[in-house]
Amino acid sequence: MTKQIPSAAILIIGNEILSGRTQDTNTQFIAAKLTSLGIRMREVRVVPDEKDLIIKAVNELRGQVDYLFTTGGIGPTHDDITAGSIAGAFGVELLPNTEARQQLLDYYGSEAELNEGRLRMALIPKGATLIRNPVSGAPGFIMENVYTMAGVPRIMQAMMDNIAVTLRQGPKIISNTVSCSLGESAIAKKLEEIQSRYETVEIGSYPHYRAGKLGLSLVLRSTDQAKLDEATEEVMAMVNAINGNPVLLTG
Amino acid sequence: MTKQIPSAAILIIGNEILSGRTQDTNTQFIAAKLTSLGIRMREVRVVPDEKDLIIKAVNELRGQVDYLFTTGGIGPTHDDITAGSIAGAFGVELLPNTEARQQLLDYYGSEAELNEGRLRMALIPKGATLIRNPVSGAPGFIMENVYTMAGVPRIMQAMMDNIAVTLRQGPKIISNTVSCSLGESAIAKKLEEIQSRYETVEIGSYPHYRAGKLGLSLVLRSTDQAKLDEATEEVMAMVNAINGNPVLLTG
Repeated sequence: MTKQIPSAAILIIGNEILSGRTQDTNTQFIAAKLTSLGIRMREVRVVPDEKDLIIKAVNELRGQVDYLFTTGGIGPTHDDITAGSIAGAFGVELLPNTEARQQLLDYYGSEAELNEGRLRMALIPKGATLIRNPVSGAPGFIMENVYTMAGVPRIMQAMMDNIAVTLRQGPKIISNTVSCSLGESAIAKKLEEIQSRYETVEIGSYPHYRAGKLGLSLVLRSTDQAKLDEATEEVMAMVNAINGNPVLLTG
Repeated sequence: MTKQIPSAAILIIGNEILSGRTQDTNTQFIAAKLTSLGIRMREVRVVPDEKDLIIKAVNELRGQVDYLFTTGGIGPTHDDITAGSIAGAFGVELLPNTEARQQLLDYYGSEAELNEGRLRMALIPKGATLIRNPVSGAPGFIMENVYTMAGVPRIMQAMMDNIAVTLRQGPKIISNTVSCSLGESAIAKKLEEIQSRYETVEIGSYPHYRAGKLGLSLVLRSTDQAKLDEATEEVMAMVNAINGNPVLLTG
């Protein structure tokens, strides 16, 4: 990895993920989006709805990557403590934000609708800029390199689409996948030998069960199309040579 | 949370999760299993297939929880570096393990089948005990409080079932869910008031979109059935009082 490739991490705030009640899908959405922008994801963390732990994780991660994305905990209820935690992490106040209030007003349509719960969603860390929420009104926000979004997938996705255009992109990561019917052991040694000759291509080996049968996907990733194709050709030839019935999926 | 409740964390080792190529499902499986055993999950991390980062995460997490579970990276290919990383984290050697070799031999059926790739899966950190793998032979292993398992869900699940019976269980966490058609803001203040009176019941509020409609699940969790039922009754009454059409799901 070169310095030109922007890096990112995700912090998921949510007891519902840690208890197994909810299947997280936000990670894959954000990860795929970032990959398409040439941004390399370095870490994902899931922490409970506890202020101390959120602050610690935010401060550890924001120093390690170019972009930190958080999801969850920005609603109006007592367990929504993300905004206060981000303020705590940056050592700033959590204040009523005029622009956020206006966005809520635009969404709900009248002052009478801005009850105490809803106004709680206009409390934003001092100095943050807002992320528009076209789905349910209450905005996310950006503090330096930390992007705080909702946890509900549909809302998070809309916010992420708004953010995506503002991020610094890296060289596009392209990939080829060679699927085959071999076990990993059959190709391990030769695959390592190919990997050793392609420093700029990352080769991953992923066994899986589908319909009760073991299969294998060899995934090659690079920012260099020529090297990627060259390495892919070698992997195809290797699998072919031991009758592994390779199937190539590009892109 | 009391000291009697055992704690756990998960470390997922896998570039395929970080790139968005693969949807992680192991977290939810492990989390739900641990919850059913009364073990409280405190953190999940996903890190790349890089030895330094794996060692750092293992050493941070294993000191913070009673049980650390890792998934991924124990196959025979060059990107399978988990066993070496765990050995590194504990400062022990990675050595051919006689028992692991025997389990591979039992699975593959003959010495001739034990090629270099497969024998790589018999390299185990010194001092570890093995976790049986009924699906594909190659075992996981336990070093102190760190449980290292495969990443392929079907294999991980079989290993987890073998492990589960050996874990120290906590008081069972029971839960009730009140679903309703209200927005969070409508109940935020009263819900907080209820939460403040039930220290031993954790109340979470989870909005969601289903079939294009906003809905809300209020999840109450506790180890104390009487308090849980009492708090649930209050939540039901609160939602009823503002015509929120509450539906109660227990267990």
